[in-house]
Amino acid sequence: MQISNLENSSLAQRLQHKLDQKTKPLGSLGRLEALALQLGLILDTETPQLEQPQLVVFAGDHGLAARGVSAYPSDVTWQMVENFLAGGAAVSVLARQHGLALTVVDCGVARDFAPREGLIVRKIAPGTADSFTGPAMSAGQCGEAIANGRAIVDELPGNALLLGEMGIGNTSAAALLLSRLTGLPLAECVGAGTGLDAAGVERKRQVLQQVLALHAHATAPLDALAAFGGFEIATMVGAVLQAAAQRRVIVADGFISTAAVLVAQRLAPHVTQRCVFSHRSDETGHALMLRHLGPAAQQPARALLDLGLRLGEGSGAALAWPLLVSACALLREMASFESAGVSGPA
Amino acid sequence: MQISNLENSSLAQRLQHKLDQKTKPLGSLGRLEALALQLGLILDTETPQLEQPQLVVFAGDHGLAARGVSAYPSDVTWQMVENFLAGGAAVSVLARQHGLALTVVDCGVARDFAPREGLIVRKIAPGTADSFTGPAMSAGQCGEAIANGRAIVDELPGNALLLGEMGIGNTSAAALLLSRLTGLPLAECVGAGTGLDAAGVERKRQVLQQVLALHAHATAPLDALAAFGGFEIATMVGAVLQAAAQRRVIVADGFISTAAVLVAQRLAPHVTQRCVFSHRSDETGHALMLRHLGPAAQQPARALLDLGLRLGEGSGAALAWPLLVSACALLREMASFESAGVSGPA
Repeated sequence: MQISNLENSSLAQRLQHKLDQKTKPLGSLGRLEALALQLGLILDTETPQLEQPQLVVFAGDHGLAARGVSAYPSDVTWQMVENFLAGGAAVSVLARQHGLALTVVDCGVARDFAPREGLIVRKIAPGTADSFTGPAMSAGQCGEAIANGRAIVDELPGNALLLGEMGIGNTSAAALLLSRLTGLPLAECVGAGTGLDAAGVERKRQVLQQVLALHAHATAPLDALAAFGGFEIATMVGAVLQAAAQRRVIVADGFISTAAVLVAQRLAPHVTQRCVFSHRSDETGHALMLRHLGPAAQQPARALLDLGLRLGEGSGAALAWPLLVSACALLREMASFESAGVSGPA
Repeated sequence: MQISNLENSSLAQRLQHKLDQKTKPLGSLGRLEALALQLGLILDTETPQLEQPQLVVFAGDHGLAARGVSAYPSDVTWQMVENFLAGGAAVSVLARQHGLALTVVDCGVARDFAPREGLIVRKIAPGTADSFTGPAMSAGQCGEAIANGRAIVDELPGNALLLGEMGIGNTSAAALLLSRLTGLPLAECVGAGTGLDAAGVERKRQVLQQVLALHAHATAPLDALAAFGGFEIATMVGAVLQAAAQRRVIVADGFISTAAVLVAQRLAPHVTQRCVFSHRSDETGHALMLRHLGPAAQQPARALLDLGLRLGEGSGAALAWPLLVSACALLREMASFESAGVSGPA
């Protein structure tokens, strides 16, 4: 599938001109102006409007979790899926607040769910295999998960996709993907996840170092994804590719969803033109990941919020959402110096 | 008027306990958790809810503007008031987006306005006197403006006040107040305002240095306020004091509104317990000002957003507003580990 380069100097110039004519000192809306420009380019219009935003939480379990890499037991994955669907999780509260349609996808949770509104079951298997002893998934499973992600987004309405995820053990998969795809030393990529203490982080590092060594051959993006998992990340990669191909606005959340963006970007570099990075997570590797996803070499991607969040679920994407709505509204609704009869600089 | 100390270790403990029982890793909502705690303490409840938020834009002109300290002519003050009322300014757009009641107060604009819904006229004079040659206002005028601010807030419904302002020349007044009330060298306090170039900033510094010297005696907060102005800042000081006394949540915007908070804090130190600092402005002195308004010595006040904004009007306060709503909603609506049947750490 073709993912086009959105560079369009004519539209970019028109958007910038429109921003510069608004009744405010030049550039005084700071990074909201760059955001408005980006949203205009993605949606290919001088009057961008976000419609029927979809927050999708991709959930899956990780075989590696049995190695003690998380502070929480794997059961929390399905328990939190129930919590999302019951409306009691942070992301449920925030989605309600902002009118975001919330969908949970069972990409590979180690438990079956009764059918429910808001739940899509695209389960590859009840959890990935243990990457400590072999690949987390086969190449076939990986391809299937990506295809699922594409199909799910294709059927969703609207022009914006907010990424969320749930999966005990998935900061391990994200750290492994970060190290392998960027060449950063693994030790720098590994953080406390849901709240390991210093000894726990050290243990996690040692386990992941062995996993990384076991899959030394898995250097291509899809090979790394299959080696390290998980099903929720692979499904999210497909979702990102599909959303990008359809010129939807993609709102990344924290460390895990940004790992999916990283894999997708290695497959289709223009993907990041469609991505808004909602926040900088407190999880160690996230800032490093953003450095590799900037609009140009040496230019890190800048996240909108920096609030010390490290929850995932799409909570950061939901929190930043009103800023995207604002950027579009300012572009559409603000008066110009001329229309409002306001004097320019003396 | 008494402004009580909100420290309440029993309520603070109950709020923290409630946050810790929510279905999320401990502390994983980062600074939103501290915000939720603060809002609970201000509103004196474990289930805070923000009601009928009021965004008030205080407008006034500055005699000093004739000295060329701004990139824009003074006429822009009244022109922007018209723009606020017509719904075309940035703050108008953002207030609509977030359901904030928008009121503009003519505290001393150098032009009379026809009566309009959303406009309150509490004009002390058509602009302050030129602080280059004498005090911007008399002590009587200063007291009158503060009383106006108190009365305006007292008549507004709701439990939250968002501060906005408009006044060509008012970054000069704010810089002078910052330098005088904190002892910081004036040169560090002066910035580009609406967009002066380097030579313009240097000229502004020289003018302000003379103003500061002329009013060397004006060291008490109210004396400094009268010496440097403006009417919109003095009225805002009254508004902050009244809102604090009534335990409303006060949302500061950028450099000017934070200067009003600084003056109010020097009159009643507990005021800042009610203040949420919405963003860190790109205007040079704002970060320095926040350092002097932290919850304790050596602990700067941290703003929620850092988006390179330097517009004023209350635009930053409006942009951060959904984060306050989120903090309250998370506290009220998220499930606990027990209620949702989610396992704790292994």
